[in-house]
Amino acid sequence: MSTGDILRRRDNLLGSNTPLFYDEPLHIVRGEGVHLYDADGRQYLDVYNNVPNVGHCNPRVVQALSRQAETLNIHTRYLHEAILDYGEALTATFADPLSMVMFTCTGSEANDLALRIARHTRPGKGIICSNETYHGNTTAVDELATLFNGGQAIGPNVKAVPYPDAYRPLDGLQGEELTQAYLLRIDQAIAEFEAEGIGLAGMLVCPIFANEGVPNVPQGYLQGAADRVRAHGGLLIFDEVQSGFARSGTMWGHEFAGVQPDIVTLGKPMGNGHPVAGLVSTPELVDSFREDIMYFNTFGGNPVSCEVAHEVLRVIQDEGLVAQVADVGQYLRDGLRALQERYELIGDVRGPGLFVGVELVNDRASKTPATAAARRVVNEMKEKGVLISKIGPGDNILKIRPPIIFSRSNADQLLNTLDEVLANE
Amino acid sequence: MSTGDILRRRDNLLGSNTPLFYDEPLHIVRGEGVHLYDADGRQYLDVYNNVPNVGHCNPRVVQALSRQAETLNIHTRYLHEAILDYGEALTATFADPLSMVMFTCTGSEANDLALRIARHTRPGKGIICSNETYHGNTTAVDELATLFNGGQAIGPNVKAVPYPDAYRPLDGLQGEELTQAYLLRIDQAIAEFEAEGIGLAGMLVCPIFANEGVPNVPQGYLQGAADRVRAHGGLLIFDEVQSGFARSGTMWGHEFAGVQPDIVTLGKPMGNGHPVAGLVSTPELVDSFREDIMYFNTFGGNPVSCEVAHEVLRVIQDEGLVAQVADVGQYLRDGLRALQERYELIGDVRGPGLFVGVELVNDRASKTPATAAARRVVNEMKEKGVLISKIGPGDNILKIRPPIIFSRSNADQLLNTLDEVLANE
Repeated sequence: MSTGDILRRRDNLLGSNTPLFYDEPLHIVRGEGVHLYDADGRQYLDVYNNVPNVGHCNPRVVQALSRQAETLNIHTRYLHEAILDYGEALTATFADPLSMVMFTCTGSEANDLALRIARHTRPGKGIICSNETYHGNTTAVDELATLFNGGQAIGPNVKAVPYPDAYRPLDGLQGEELTQAYLLRIDQAIAEFEAEGIGLAGMLVCPIFANEGVPNVPQGYLQGAADRVRAHGGLLIFDEVQSGFARSGTMWGHEFAGVQPDIVTLGKPMGNGHPVAGLVSTPELVDSFREDIMYFNTFGGNPVSCEVAHEVLRVIQDEGLVAQVADVGQYLRDGLRALQERYELIGDVRGPGLFVGVELVNDRASKTPATAAARRVVNEMKEKGVLISKIGPGDNILKIRPPIIFSRSNADQLLNTLDEVLANE
Repeated sequence: MSTGDILRRRDNLLGSNTPLFYDEPLHIVRGEGVHLYDADGRQYLDVYNNVPNVGHCNPRVVQALSRQAETLNIHTRYLHEAILDYGEALTATFADPLSMVMFTCTGSEANDLALRIARHTRPGKGIICSNETYHGNTTAVDELATLFNGGQAIGPNVKAVPYPDAYRPLDGLQGEELTQAYLLRIDQAIAEFEAEGIGLAGMLVCPIFANEGVPNVPQGYLQGAADRVRAHGGLLIFDEVQSGFARSGTMWGHEFAGVQPDIVTLGKPMGNGHPVAGLVSTPELVDSFREDIMYFNTFGGNPVSCEVAHEVLRVIQDEGLVAQVADVGQYLRDGLRALQERYELIGDVRGPGLFVGVELVNDRASKTPATAAARRVVNEMKEKGVLISKIGPGDNILKIRPPIIFSRSNADQLLNTLDEVLANE
């Protein structure tokens, strides 16, 4: 079937504004490891997808899925050991007191549940988020989708603060002054919530600020934020849907950030594409929420989801992927910085582990976002068989975020292709 | 591992108030067709679970899952035919103009999205629900969880009206007077929303009022409700997470009810346990929502979910399960009514298709809910190898809701076991 026919059927069935990638969309039919294949059999190096983290169609994960699906798939109101075996293995990767887990099916559900826990257990309802973010699609979580709302949060119970960014610093400040300037905005948001009688429930951010374009976070910012939020009775919620499961070159993004949260939400790569998600938190918070609120999630924590997620975790551990991500990520950033020396278009190279941002600018002094160039580069890379994307308020930051099994040799292919494309810019 | 050990691990990992069935919980390890098996190898007839609708571990569905999982599992921002093939087959079972679909992973997400669509496309924000219901676990959908909140909706934007019930009728009325009395409550809720400046966005109910205990709905109620809601600019949203996919002896619960909604939400049995859900609506609503709002669901509509859900739909169609549900459901209600003639405890037998409610009362004149007896019956049935549950504001309605492949012979086993248990009451 032609792309045109597929697009027509898609418009009629799903709506013409259903999100789609590339000027000429890709028709993907098969995946294996770090590669995707289109309907014409053309191979693409996948440097975008952070869900199939241990590789497209990882055989160990597919086998775990099939084996449990043919044995039993049932909700959690009967006893089953799969949820306990996985949950214990998962929480063992967190420092105390983060020892309890609640399962959902999506990161949106996990963030929505985190908001419910914060607003139920804290005296206030106010949530602080960043001004260029997205955490999911439910009504409550959408109030934090400042990325699609001109930097503004929606409704009285959410306030956005400027995300921390050493490349485009607030008021042109540097060092400790910059950190304090960003922290002052948190103080102000808390004061406003209190003045309005809303009070504070917490702060929900990604510890690597993935959707903001993985900025270099000024030193001390996240610990300062944690201290301020907790001093006013709020919880620090880290959305690790993107930063977690080895992505950051550490098992968890909060290890990279060096700050311990009260709730960690999980999603995307947890089941390598199978819809499993959840949150990890403390006995104090989970028990006090569960004592008051009947929370049940029909598919959440079912034996199939738990066996799949457990196998993903085992692959990460057995194959030493945390160390591999740290190594390949550094190798990749070194290669990109070598390109930066040759191409004026590259203003900044940054990001933890294998979440790398390459900011394209029209000139390095004014740092004007090179939005059109970024679009061309992403589409040209696709034409040359490498899939990346772009992100950021100026839509000018190349988003380089492959499955975490990505190797140095895969990185070489990416670097060589990017070199070719930039040479034509 | 002993039940005691599992419970201790469960309390530590998930929280002691995590929902669990039965006075002595079941440790289920395997499922096949209409049967579940515990860790000691004991077989149970499953007359409770409405998720594994085409049978536990249905081999066709498991095969579809495995085949696609080893080929490709990816989000919907590339083109793929599985989502189109399934979506077109699904919407073909609805009457026009219900021709478009949006995919989510859970019924909670589907209901949350339906609320977003209604509140975005209608001038008002107010939602009407019933006073003994539950539609899911997100912050916004939880505002409708009157079942856990003493019959009250949460917050200013939701109002609960009494659910329609001919067995326990409002003010002891009957016939057309009863219908009008229930409809008056809708008029009042709309008038209150308008007086408060909130306005009306719509009404969200299950067309068979599953969580209310599948009451006999007074004639004309649902059409009257639809007319009133639409006359004030609101949408009629039917939550068919439980009533849909042949459960009601018709493909959709709204066919059983004889009323056409504006949005239908889908979930539980859609993937036979695989986390796939969504909503079906009109081009007018879906397009106008998508034009304004960037809605994306990472796992929603992925090829694995669509292949699984498509196979479930094919099984329903190939095996003639709509007709089978209608036949076995009637056979079961006839058998239960024969028991009703012998046991005073049975006050009412009702429900569409294979969602059957058996209301236990201490005496038929006062209709006092036989709550303690219902609890004993459910636990005794389990001891005799048959799994049912209970529901309703008085927790006294036996909930009989097997996988839809349930046969007359399965119904006989249920009836005989219930006979034995009631003889000891």
